[in-house]
Order: sequence, then structure tokens, then C-alpha cells
Amino acid sequence: MAQNIYDQPAFFEGYSSLPRSVHGLAGAAEWESVRALLPDLKGRRVVDLGCGFGWFARYAAGAGAADVLGLDLSENMIARARAETESPAVRYEIADLDHLELPEGGFDFAYSSLAFHYIADFGRLIRTIHAALVPGADFVFTIEHPLYMAPSVPDWAEVGGRTVWPVDGYLIEGPRTTDWLAKDVVKHHRTLGATLNALIAAGFAIRHVEEWRPSEAQLAARPEWRIELNRPMFLLIACERT
Amino acid sequence: MAQNIYDQPAFFEGYSSLPRSVHGLAGAAEWESVRALLPDLKGRRVVDLGCGFGWFARYAAGAGAADVLGLDLSENMIARARAETESPAVRYEIADLDHLELPEGGFDFAYSSLAFHYIADFGRLIRTIHAALVPGADFVFTIEHPLYMAPSVPDWAEVGGRTVWPVDGYLIEGPRTTDWLAKDVVKHHRTLGATLNALIAAGFAIRHVEEWRPSEAQLAARPEWRIELNRPMFLLIACERT
Repeated sequence: MAQNIYDQPAFFEGYSSLPRSVHGLAGAAEWESVRALLPDLKGRRVVDLGCGFGWFARYAAGAGAADVLGLDLSENMIARARAETESPAVRYEIADLDHLELPEGGFDFAYSSLAFHYIADFGRLIRTIHAALVPGADFVFTIEHPLYMAPSVPDWAEVGGRTVWPVDGYLIEGPRTTDWLAKDVVKHHRTLGATLNALIAAGFAIRHVEEWRPSEAQLAARPEWRIELNRPMFLLIACERT
Repeated sequence: MAQNIYDQPAFFEGYSSLPRSVHGLAGAAEWESVRALLPDLKGRRVVDLGCGFGWFARYAAGAGAADVLGLDLSENMIARARAETESPAVRYEIADLDHLELPEGGFDFAYSSLAFHYIADFGRLIRTIHAALVPGADFVFTIEHPLYMAPSVPDWAEVGGRTVWPVDGYLIEGPRTTDWLAKDVVKHHRTLGATLNALIAAGFAIRHVEEWRPSEAQLAARPEWRIELNRPMFLLIACERT
């Protein structure tokens, strides 16, 4: 079973106070970029892998999705998602993405936000999602960018008067243990190439690969985000089930 | 016209003494990985963009290609390529990839090694290559990895006792001026995502994306290459003209 950090009280409390938890999609810096990659959801059967508090599931229902299944490992998150969702088109289930099972051809669109970097066996997960989608279905997901996740000490450093992101071990894939909201959070680093090749091997056609950067409007509103131009924090991928 | 560093005497002399210039493909650390991406070249009409001394052109002819066109901006390199090539299937022409023109549908396979990072308008180049290939044709190329090219000071640094690759400005695309064999060599940095999206927009299907790392055999033979595991020097891409 995947590490369930979200049900550790300290982590859950910290995560619950992040802008994206308080303000939903609009509180996520990368949301406008993600939204630009979404297909028309009207009438689609949608699965959201790692749905958290259900913000995207409710967005999808609001955009006319016929049916939305939100899956998450965290009992706390599913409980709050259920409590905050009124739409009868949305349902939530507790599920471990490391052992995911989905009905074959049961969905027209798959989505995931910042969940897959916790998954050890990405290939298995992707093959399961492929089988669960109908041909021609879109699949849009985000992860922490591997460049963000790779370093042994993932934090800004000063080198020769410059602020740099000190990359080491990028080509050594495997677990990365960091302290983020809680001690010893385990993520699984894969190179960008490995992520794309796993998608291609499973039968997805790559449609768009975006190494996220703040927009000019965001930089104007928050000049302190300029540091983010030094390396991407998020990776956004859109592909199509062939 | 693109900067023609290869015809500067100091650069040409330096480049000519690199292992890959002296020993050919076998002297290029990434060659075995590149070769694994190549299709069967038998009977194919091949174009090599930035052919240098003609090592790949001769390899392609040896692998049974029907016709090989090697293109390079450098008069020095084309002269030496012609002098060292005996196969009647191979011809060389001086060409500026920034203003490339190719016959429509004239080729069955396109190849390029470490040339495109000198090109300012990658989109134009890729559309030209797409038009020059027949549907279903393969296209394999390598560039300096954007992670290698992005930093304002692209050299190892020590941070907290670790050897790191100090990344800054990765998300700011455009020219990068470095001193490599000669002063003020200009390269054009694009994110990995931008490179892939340009290929997809031009009508290529992405088949394989490899962020090169030394093989275990190479690391055993040259333990000092272990530092290369910290960040990829080369990016290898295989795609198909749709």
C-alpha cells in the first residue's frame, strides 16, 4: 500500500491550510495552465485519480460531465469531499493508486493532479488507466516536475552570487524522502523521459508537455514568484488513449 | 545565417581533436543509445542535418541506405567529409539549417546529431523536415539537453559538500552564450516541453524520449563518468512523421 501521509494529523492539518485547499482550483498556481489542456467535459464519464477534497470533481460536474468518480487513498479527504459535494453526478471512493482497479472502457476522460509522484509502479498504473479509457479519450495529469523532485536537498542555494536549483542525482530514479508538511514523505523520482516512454509504451499519444512557469500576469501580481523561472515546479502532460 | 563557429580555425582545431571526431561514432558516449533508436536503414533515402565529418552518413550507407544526403554549414567539415567518403550513395552539401530547404517527400529517414541547439527558429526547421519526409518516416535526433544548456554558468558547483549542477533560468528560453572550444559560442535554449510541443505541432508522433546517461558498462570502464548521473548532457528523441 502507498504511504498514506494525508491521514497523518500533522500533514492533513498543514495540507488543509494550503491556498489550494482553502481556495480550491483558483488557489493552485498551475490551474489556468491545466484548464487550457482540458477537453470539453460535457457528457463525459470522468475519473479523478487522487481527488483530494473534490475540487476538480465538482468542477467537472459543473462543466457538464455525466458522471465523475473521485478516488483517493485518504479517508479524511474523501470524507470532506463527500461533505462538500452536492452534485448527484459525483461519487467518491477510497482507493490505493498502487493497486488501482478500474472497469475496462468505463471512462471518457482521466485526470490527476499532483498524485502520481507518490506512486512506485508508474507503468502498472498507466496501463490500468489506459484499459479504463475508451479509444480517443483524453488523459491530463500533473506531477511534481522531476527536476524539482530529483535533488538530494531540494531547496534553493547560492552559488557565485546566483540563486540556483542545485540538481544532483537526476538520472538516478527511485524514492526521494523529504520533509514537506510532515517528516519522511516518500516520493518516487522518474526522469521526464521515463514518464513519457511509459505513457507511449502503454498506448498513449503525447499531445502536450508543459514545464510550468508563472504567467506574466502572475509575475506582475507576485514579483516574488520570479524565482520560479529558474526551474519548473510542476509538469503538466496531456495525452490521448489510442 | 547561423553562427558558423565550425569554420573558425581555433574551434575547428579543437573540435577535430574531440574523441567523436577522431574515433567517429564509437567515440561518442551517446552513440550506442542513439543506435538503439534507429530504424532499419536498408533502401532508405536518408538526410543527415549537421553531418560534420560524415561519420553517420557513412554508417547509413554501410547499413544499406539507398541514398544519403549530408548537410552542414561548415565548409571545412564538408570538405573533410567528402575526402573521407568513398560510397557513391553518399553526397554532401553546404546548407544553413536556419534557412533549410528540402524537396517535399524526398526522404524516408531524417537524422541529426547535436546540431539543433544552434538553431534559433526550431519550429520552422521542424516543419521543413516534416514536409521533406514521407508519411510513416522516422526522425531521430540528439541535442544538448536543455538542463545542460540552461544555466547562466553551465559548470559543476559545490553546495554543502555535494557536487551539483546549478540550474537557473531554465524557463527563460533564448540564446545562451558560452565559451566552448571558442569564445562566445551561441546556442538557443528551449525547454524540453517546448521542443516536444514543436514536434507534435508539426505533425510528428513522439516515440521515445531519452535523457542520456552512461551505461553500467561505461561507468565500469570510466568511473569518473559517475558525475554525469547528476544531470543529462544529451537529449535523444525518436519520432514518426504522421
